[in-house]
Amino acid sequence: MTTLPAHYDKIDQTLANTLRLLAVDAVQEANSGHPGLPLGVADFVSVLWTRFLKHDPAQPEWPDRDRFVLSAGHGSALLYSLLHLFGYPLPLDELKRFRQLGAITAGHPEYDPALGIELTTGPLGQGISSAVGMALAERWLAQRFNRPGFTLVDHTTWVLASDGDLMEGVSSEAASLAGHWGLGKLIVLYDDNHISIDGNTQVSFTEDVLQRFSSYGWHISRVDGHDMAAVDTAIRTAQAETQRPSIIACRTQIGFGSPMVNTAKVHGSPLGPAGVRATKEALGFPADEKFYVPAAVRPRIAQALRPGAQARAHWQAQLQAYRQAHPQLAAQWDEQISGKLPAGWQNSLPDFSNQKPMATRATSGQVIAALTPILPTLVGGSADLSGSNKTNPPNQQTINRQNYHGNYIHYGVREHAMGAIMNGLAVHNLRPFGGTFLVFSDYLRGAIRLAALMKLPVIYIFTHDSIGVGEDGPTHQPIEHVTSLRLIPGLVTLRPADGNETAKAWQVALERQGPTALILTRQALPQMTAKNNGLHRGAYILQDSATSRPDIVLIASGSEVALAMEAAQTLQAQNIQARVVSMPSWELFDAQEAAYRAQVLPADVPKLAIEAGAGLGWRRYVGLDGAVLSIDSFGASGPGSAVFAKFGFTVENIIAMVRQLLA
Amino acid sequence: MTTLPAHYDKIDQTLANTLRLLAVDAVQEANSGHPGLPLGVADFVSVLWTRFLKHDPAQPEWPDRDRFVLSAGHGSALLYSLLHLFGYPLPLDELKRFRQLGAITAGHPEYDPALGIELTTGPLGQGISSAVGMALAERWLAQRFNRPGFTLVDHTTWVLASDGDLMEGVSSEAASLAGHWGLGKLIVLYDDNHISIDGNTQVSFTEDVLQRFSSYGWHISRVDGHDMAAVDTAIRTAQAETQRPSIIACRTQIGFGSPMVNTAKVHGSPLGPAGVRATKEALGFPADEKFYVPAAVRPRIAQALRPGAQARAHWQAQLQAYRQAHPQLAAQWDEQISGKLPAGWQNSLPDFSNQKPMATRATSGQVIAALTPILPTLVGGSADLSGSNKTNPPNQQTINRQNYHGNYIHYGVREHAMGAIMNGLAVHNLRPFGGTFLVFSDYLRGAIRLAALMKLPVIYIFTHDSIGVGEDGPTHQPIEHVTSLRLIPGLVTLRPADGNETAKAWQVALERQGPTALILTRQALPQMTAKNNGLHRGAYILQDSATSRPDIVLIASGSEVALAMEAAQTLQAQNIQARVVSMPSWELFDAQEAAYRAQVLPADVPKLAIEAGAGLGWRRYVGLDGAVLSIDSFGASGPGSAVFAKFGFTVENIIAMVRQLLA
Repeated sequence: MTTLPAHYDKIDQTLANTLRLLAVDAVQEANSGHPGLPLGVADFVSVLWTRFLKHDPAQPEWPDRDRFVLSAGHGSALLYSLLHLFGYPLPLDELKRFRQLGAITAGHPEYDPALGIELTTGPLGQGISSAVGMALAERWLAQRFNRPGFTLVDHTTWVLASDGDLMEGVSSEAASLAGHWGLGKLIVLYDDNHISIDGNTQVSFTEDVLQRFSSYGWHISRVDGHDMAAVDTAIRTAQAETQRPSIIACRTQIGFGSPMVNTAKVHGSPLGPAGVRATKEALGFPADEKFYVPAAVRPRIAQALRPGAQARAHWQAQLQAYRQAHPQLAAQWDEQISGKLPAGWQNSLPDFSNQKPMATRATSGQVIAALTPILPTLVGGSADLSGSNKTNPPNQQTINRQNYHGNYIHYGVREHAMGAIMNGLAVHNLRPFGGTFLVFSDYLRGAIRLAALMKLPVIYIFTHDSIGVGEDGPTHQPIEHVTSLRLIPGLVTLRPADGNETAKAWQVALERQGPTALILTRQALPQMTAKNNGLHRGAYILQDSATSRPDIVLIASGSEVALAMEAAQTLQAQNIQARVVSMPSWELFDAQEAAYRAQVLPADVPKLAIEAGAGLGWRRYVGLDGAVLSIDSFGASGPGSAVFAKFGFTVENIIAMVRQLLA
Repeated sequence: MTTLPAHYDKIDQTLANTLRLLAVDAVQEANSGHPGLPLGVADFVSVLWTRFLKHDPAQPEWPDRDRFVLSAGHGSALLYSLLHLFGYPLPLDELKRFRQLGAITAGHPEYDPALGIELTTGPLGQGISSAVGMALAERWLAQRFNRPGFTLVDHTTWVLASDGDLMEGVSSEAASLAGHWGLGKLIVLYDDNHISIDGNTQVSFTEDVLQRFSSYGWHISRVDGHDMAAVDTAIRTAQAETQRPSIIACRTQIGFGSPMVNTAKVHGSPLGPAGVRATKEALGFPADEKFYVPAAVRPRIAQALRPGAQARAHWQAQLQAYRQAHPQLAAQWDEQISGKLPAGWQNSLPDFSNQKPMATRATSGQVIAALTPILPTLVGGSADLSGSNKTNPPNQQTINRQNYHGNYIHYGVREHAMGAIMNGLAVHNLRPFGGTFLVFSDYLRGAIRLAALMKLPVIYIFTHDSIGVGEDGPTHQPIEHVTSLRLIPGLVTLRPADGNETAKAWQVALERQGPTALILTRQALPQMTAKNNGLHRGAYILQDSATSRPDIVLIASGSEVALAMEAAQTLQAQNIQARVVSMPSWELFDAQEAAYRAQVLPADVPKLAIEAGAGLGWRRYVGLDGAVLSIDSFGASGPGSAVFAKFGFTVENIIAMVRQLLA
């Protein structure tokens, strides 16, 4: 598809050096940043961007563009230089404001597809792992929408990864899955520079990386990352391999062209005025020019962009024809691209009123069963706990290399990759959800945080949410986890009390622009709430006192709501009037108006919060004069009911606490 | 060293089946647990325990025993059966109380070396990763203490790992390091049963595991896990390989002997009465007997234990001779085994009074420099951020395969493995500390939690602790992290305000029995506190108001203490009397007596808490009528001071908040 020759000339070299020095100048101007990677990778990245990358800066969000993921996010100056040079809406002034407050050229790339930034990256290992999800989504979309004569989806996901990306465990997990899935259109360019921050990679990274990727089922190759023609050939070979993902180890010199070449120091420190000057001289650029773009590179870039623009035009014409040939599919395509769910989907949410007691993981499973047939983008999965998390729908169609367009993913025991891959699915407008035990939410926090930063509507199904886990004991009993999830900005944590709250929680999660954690029980809970309950307000009066003013407000979440209801009944028999507030979400409640909050939790009534987890944070709802029934130590192994009793989660203890509070 | 023949007979088979059925009965009795693994692995585990494992149940904690790590902790019933059968202090009654409240036979093994439980395991991937640390510690101790003619330390670390262990990224990270370090005395028996919870491993785990381990530099082999003689040979071959860790893939049938053999269901569900009966019949055991131990196995076990007892006796005799030949080393050995630090080490802590402003990561570096020469067990490291974390001491001796007895570990960009490996070092009484950026504490929470469960004195050096990180932006700016660490039971989180608090924090950390997180700044802070400051009390009055009763209490931690001090000065000029409380640790403050707490934070004085992180949790110190200056969104990329100003961390804003509070 390229109109540029496969041979490389002096202009190509100048273009690569232009990228190098734009990045160097940006870093120097900011007096902060990472010049080493841009200097090292510019040659092979130039090859990719001039000869292979299918994109059109005039329409950055064209759906079938290739994706370029800078997994080594610290090389952001390179990405911004590329985007600027290739005509994305990133003006030179923004490059000059690199790393300044309010600039679009943040220290690490921040997800903005309209600008050509496909993922937020920086935490190593995440970009490459999410790219696995992106490449999987590409195949999913291709199988869903492509028809004979119509290839709506057919693009490559390219990743620039560093040593650090490949040392992180999350990328090992994701790479194993990429090999398992045979993602032939995933191509990783590995900046194999033998240097990490602590020095030569010999100090800690002596494994045979390519052999490892081969063991995952990847196609591997090795090339001199400064030899453009060789890189070109390696990429063509990788493209020709359609059944396996490819990794090309591009041997480079970090800080190429600078006096600090091949040192760890050049990784993350500006070169300094003298270093910048020396680098410009070494690369044959005018030493006194800043942000200099030689005239010769402009036509080369224009030429490089032509095939992408043509491909995009061709694609759009094709889409028009597709609308004629496959109107229903075309409508689905529009819906897919818009990220919207089919109108009225909420009507399919089940009603659990008057049903038998069920674990909220089970009611969640019923919601999934109800929604999967009508929400085509819903793609579930579990880190090898499908039966426990109740994540798999009755019509489970496992996604694998024989069938990409399924609705279920077996992630294996790889929680962190699950999180990162879901981020990759979400940027393609799939609606992923994935399960594990709540206690193992710790394993994927890195990925959750990025979902929150990118505002991706990923749904986490965290089951076995308390000491109610029982016999599996402290290693499997979450204590600190619900609240430590509440702490993540932009994540909404929902701990429903029964089936109807579970259904509402799913509704909130699916309607959000941002990630949501559903916190679900292992054990059965009675059905107490109405279909039209107040979960979406974060907290609401589930049952008020018989008197106009309650003596006590019992606040509880999840499995403890039933306990609070039981306690309220006993209290009433003792002439103590209790209001029961179900509080599935702090985040949603805090977002309510003050008047509503004051109505639910009146200032002048004593309050007891009940939650089988860490107590930290509850004080802002019960005040210093209220009380909190919580667990601030590790749990214990034993039958769930015995463990609950051991930690004081009994009606008797609640009564005693209320009496002490009122005394 | 064995007196048992290398060939295997009917009694060996009976012994293996005894283990199988003890485990099956325990699970059935509890009506909870995991029979699949014990049934599957009993044959090869019997080979290990009868022919190879060097141990002496009469002295479970003999320092030079082999370590057996059940990384697949869900197979606890097998471990308890082994411990019971081989004479550890685990009576049959406890086996019958499997998974009951208060039993020593918890759902997953809980660290108790006196009982023969070398690690708390259950969360997959952790055991094998910590075992890497244990095997490294073994080499470290060997090099430190062994002398010609005296081999005090020479034992093998054995690991039983499952598919799940090997899918987890943390084990990939740790295995790469084990290969890098050439840990020849680490031998992993991989229960290669082709089944995980979601079904056949073909659904998600199709990589070539052994090729992967080969790429890490491991010795690999494959064997029929039910063929005892073949397992014996494979283990001998692994033992003969001294320069590389070994992994032996033992092909087994999960649930061997039961009607549910080779199914996922047998993994985690009791067999049921009929299933138990059928299994006993299939294995030739009396169907009506429970917890049955055939008479023939007792002498076989006694015989199997003889070499271990002899080795232990020989070792103790050797130690006596060592005391004569190397009295100084012997004294160090005793200290090492006791886990105590040399008396008076605290005297070496530096005094930072009147020194220039420094980042607390830098003052921490000076503490490390001062302590490393006098604390022989201190072993530092970093996940490839040594220069940033200031973790490496001036006399850095890198631990590698040429020199195990160093004081510094380059973990590479592998935070999770760092955490798990430190746990392994700590069970051998090394005093590990390891650094990364605070924002990446998320990556190792799984390992931190286990350190807390095991009460291991691991020290985490988490630097770049706030938006003060500056230009690197939101992906690198911690917001929720300090408080989410505070949430972990048993972990103490310390955020010192300057050099002297940093020194005190190190003292607290080194004197604790349990893990400690040091939260340190990137940016310089003025020296404000006395050498004899109150950090150990969690919070203390750093500067009181001129009046006897303050108008306002400013509470701050870490870098915000200096800001509070500055604000107090400005307030005084405005005739508002402020007390400044430095609060480096919630956990330590909460442990103080009520009177002290009330003295520091008087109930009737308005309070403003200042911390550049999530505000959640501060209400319990400032009350509902106090105020909190915090950050409850993600940060921003820009120079640190600009970012601080953007989020209101300025004297002006504090004054405004105080005025509003007092209005």
